[in-house]
Amino acid sequence: MKKTLVAIAALAATSAFAQSSVTAYGVLDTAYYTAETKTATVKTKYAGLTNSTLAGSRLGFKGTEDMGNGLKANFVAEMSLNAIGDQFGSKSDGAGAPAGNKTTDGTVAATFNRQTWVGLSSAKAGEVRIGYQNTLQYDHNAPFSAGFEGAAGAREHLEVLTGASLGGITNAETNRATGVTYFAPEMGGVKLAAQWGALKANQTTLKDNAAGADYRASHSSLSAMYTNGPLTAGAAIGQSSLQANAAGQLFWQGTKVDTTSYSLGASYDLKVAKLFAYYGERETENGTAAKDVNVKVYRLGAQVPMGAVTLFGSMGQLTGDEGTTKVSDRKTTQIGALYAFSKRTRGFAMWGNDKADTALAGFSATAAGLSAAAAPTSTSTMRVGVSHSF
Amino acid sequence: MKKTLVAIAALAATSAFAQSSVTAYGVLDTAYYTAETKTATVKTKYAGLTNSTLAGSRLGFKGTEDMGNGLKANFVAEMSLNAIGDQFGSKSDGAGAPAGNKTTDGTVAATFNRQTWVGLSSAKAGEVRIGYQNTLQYDHNAPFSAGFEGAAGAREHLEVLTGASLGGITNAETNRATGVTYFAPEMGGVKLAAQWGALKANQTTLKDNAAGADYRASHSSLSAMYTNGPLTAGAAIGQSSLQANAAGQLFWQGTKVDTTSYSLGASYDLKVAKLFAYYGERETENGTAAKDVNVKVYRLGAQVPMGAVTLFGSMGQLTGDEGTTKVSDRKTTQIGALYAFSKRTRGFAMWGNDKADTALAGFSATAAGLSAAAAPTSTSTMRVGVSHSF
Amino acid sequence: MKKTLVAIAALAATSAFAQSSVTAYGVLDTAYYTAETKTATVKTKYAGLTNSTLAGSRLGFKGTEDMGNGLKANFVAEMSLNAIGDQFGSKSDGAGAPAGNKTTDGTVAATFNRQTWVGLSSAKAGEVRIGYQNTLQYDHNAPFSAGFEGAAGAREHLEVLTGASLGGITNAETNRATGVTYFAPEMGGVKLAAQWGALKANQTTLKDNAAGADYRASHSSLSAMYTNGPLTAGAAIGQSSLQANAAGQLFWQGTKVDTTSYSLGASYDLKVAKLFAYYGERETENGTAAKDVNVKVYRLGAQVPMGAVTLFGSMGQLTGDEGTTKVSDRKTTQIGALYAFSKRTRGFAMWGNDKADTALAGFSATAAGLSAAAAPTSTSTMRVGVSHSF
Repeated sequence: MKKTLVAIAALAATSAFAQSSVTAYGVLDTAYYTAETKTATVKTKYAGLTNSTLAGSRLGFKGTEDMGNGLKANFVAEMSLNAIGDQFGSKSDGAGAPAGNKTTDGTVAATFNRQTWVGLSSAKAGEVRIGYQNTLQYDHNAPFSAGFEGAAGAREHLEVLTGASLGGITNAETNRATGVTYFAPEMGGVKLAAQWGALKANQTTLKDNAAGADYRASHSSLSAMYTNGPLTAGAAIGQSSLQANAAGQLFWQGTKVDTTSYSLGASYDLKVAKLFAYYGERETENGTAAKDVNVKVYRLGAQVPMGAVTLFGSMGQLTGDEGTTKVSDRKTTQIGALYAFSKRTRGFAMWGNDKADTALAGFSATAAGLSAAAAPTSTSTMRVGVSHSF
Repeated sequence: MKKTLVAIAALAATSAFAQSSVTAYGVLDTAYYTAETKTATVKTKYAGLTNSTLAGSRLGFKGTEDMGNGLKANFVAEMSLNAIGDQFGSKSDGAGAPAGNKTTDGTVAATFNRQTWVGLSSAKAGEVRIGYQNTLQYDHNAPFSAGFEGAAGAREHLEVLTGASLGGITNAETNRATGVTYFAPEMGGVKLAAQWGALKANQTTLKDNAAGADYRASHSSLSAMYTNGPLTAGAAIGQSSLQANAAGQLFWQGTKVDTTSYSLGASYDLKVAKLFAYYGERETENGTAAKDVNVKVYRLGAQVPMGAVTLFGSMGQLTGDEGTTKVSDRKTTQIGALYAFSKRTRGFAMWGNDKADTALAGFSATAAGLSAAAAPTSTSTMRVGVSHSF
Repeated sequence: MKKTLVAIAALAATSAFAQSSVTAYGVLDTAYYTAETKTATVKTKYAGLTNSTLAGSRLGFKGTEDMGNGLKANFVAEMSLNAIGDQFGSKSDGAGAPAGNKTTDGTVAATFNRQTWVGLSSAKAGEVRIGYQNTLQYDHNAPFSAGFEGAAGAREHLEVLTGASLGGITNAETNRATGVTYFAPEMGGVKLAAQWGALKANQTTLKDNAAGADYRASHSSLSAMYTNGPLTAGAAIGQSSLQANAAGQLFWQGTKVDTTSYSLGASYDLKVAKLFAYYGERETENGTAAKDVNVKVYRLGAQVPMGAVTLFGSMGQLTGDEGTTKVSDRKTTQIGALYAFSKRTRGFAMWGNDKADTALAGFSATAAGLSAAAAPTSTSTMRVGVSHSF
């Protein structure tokens, strides 16, 4: 005992206490994978090591300051990690392209690209966060999946997200955005949240500005989550708006783009199995009615715990219409097993298939905020690996 | 008590003690802003979220090793954080340009771009730091301002810094540099410091080297700070020298550039108000006397504490002469209020104006180390936000 | 005592315990240097501050989770630090080129570019690591040198490494790779390890793929280390293989490249001096026998402890043959002294010379995986600095 106390006195004398307000945390998730991609005439095989199957590998720093009277100041700064050097497989199996965060000796970059925000919270009045953070749609959608993001058949291929990446003036599927978020205190098992972000730049008033230089952008969303015993249910609605004076720069047509999305999800824990369901719609108005794009998504799945092993399966479909023409049809399946070495460390093996059909020539899937796989493609992948939280 | 000690014994058994030599720290500072920029014919408005108003958002790691006999080894590694994705406003209100450290999923980069140094310190002999660190001019100037950096009307627009960014062979206003710094032990309320950095590269001796390939660069500076009760006063002097054999590469004329700067500052705490004053000059010799550039700066301000609220106001002027011709005249004003939620967390609201007038056609403000606003411009900005230290 | 316990109770109440699973650590190593490079007709001098002499400056995060039954989960995420802004000297004295990790306000990037892996370990069954990590050759070679990496005359110039940078599809000397490594439990003073990595990408089967798009790559290696009192001895063998369908993209000739390397090392501690020896060979087969490249390396050295001071000297030679023609001859020498301020902090002064002779016109030293100094060059350097571990 005496020795322990001496050691503690020594600790107290260092600057370590100053660090008590910062917690380092993260995830490292690696796997071996094989993948096979088939298009009309070509079959391509890939194999190697890959990153971020169960969860995105990351390193973060967070802290909370208790300021008295129930008031707290909070922050998070969190970046992606890639345990696999570029060209050794990225999050998207079947792609030889480098991942965003390379670990080679190259020139590119670990950034605090997951979340960087600061805010205030109060037990009575709720919490406000300002900065770069998860969208409400993303936080809403994630719990309602039996499967995982990082493989063919991934959950994320079948989500409806409000295009929140307004900073980059794109409307692709995005799960993080710059903005202000308010989380209300939980009331009767219900959690409500609202998020808003806006950008008005180069709003020149005294003369016509050069094409492309002006734009306004905003996004706003609401989410509700209800938990009661084995049941969790939620709904989210979001809208984003982009306006520029340059045709072609933002979208394939028009200069004003409004996107509205709705999503509903539920999970129910039967003990012998946990069931998951998700449905969502997103409509993008491009000023020309015939070219509006409407996306519908559903997803169903189950997780079956068997001691340290959990089996899971998830399937779903995404369809996209441009005006009255069907332009995208995507079906995904994912099955697998998790093994819990501990609460923080899991092994996994899974198989997934992603079959994307884009029939309309000239249709820009990317511009419509759909998946990047514009050509009819079937990708099957197998992943075996380990995911560790710290 | 018993439980606490058990918990401590558990802590002692982990690797946490190994970390007692490293402290994580930082700042997250975000705000909503509106800005309006007026030039001769154009008025442009901006609005959105922005970063680093009261202090630069950052994440750092530091540590001290006590080596006995009063000798210590110290290090700092500190990077900028941007809580606001690029194009959602950067440190310079009114600019849509991306900030240096993006938080989007893009390709660029959080670097230890604020400070990265290692050194030794002794209670008797003082401290030496080697690496990338604040210039003495910057550390000298910062305390003598009632206002803040991150907005129009900013303190940093009215500082005289020796161009220390010799690594990049530019002479712009710079507040960090690679070098060796010596801090003498405090004597009678006086702190003295000296800083030196140098680079001789490609000093080819056996033949004429290709134009632009050879250069020598050095910077050196001294600072003194005196504190006595309510009074703090300081002086700093610095010199930098750049030599290259390529005209046009470094400056608009000539190949040898010497820059000398002087600055004086004082603050006095009257309890009901704290007063601030700063004056500085910088002269850049370009080999052709008529083209020497002389910059003069003054800045005055006050902070008035009223319980948890502190009101502040700061104003100043920068004038630049090229030979005998006046080439730059810049006036800034900043007023606002701080609210202390705690010692570490502050809310703020402020308004600032920056009116820059550059009359001479063809004059390169940037090359002269003046502000980047080369055209006559008036920018007004409003910021409301929160700044949290951890 | 009471005060200490109160402080500890306060610590226990914070989130600091959550951090007990993560340890921050690193090295900051800076020096002043002068260097002189001589080629046939040109002598060039350099001077300035430089980074990473005794050890690579770095910041890392690591952790271990004890999962019971002797099973642990482990991770490391480690990045390079550069305490010296770019153009103020990089790891390679005599080069004005920017280092990989800039500390200036520029656009490039601190990445977790040293190691990022996760794994499981067991006292009985050994350890597995998956991700980006040191090659076995690198871990094998490092202990068998009396000198250091970061200067002319550097150890690393005289190492034989299996080209493991398969991600980048180059075969240059590389000390880190993506792969899976198995470390067997120590048995009778012997440590065995095996490493494997592979990549099969774009292995198109249904039609001829475009030139350059297909490739397969793999590396595998074994190492053994034996320690018995004053003696440490080791051996490592490795092989890498690259296959592409585009001539010229990977190597100067051919499309299939196999590289095999062997290395042997030993150190013996006589108390008054510690002796070091290393020998290695590497053979690269390029399909055309006459163009195979064979590299041979030896290195000898000693460290002499004298209280807090340690003197050291190291010398060696690398020769390269392309077919039957000698294409490279490189001799290095490094001598110096270390001063231990503490176990974690050392001062140092050293001198080194690197004389590289590459006689054959048109020979690509880089392509052959030899040093980048393709022209006959002699570089002498002096470094004085401090290296601090935390």
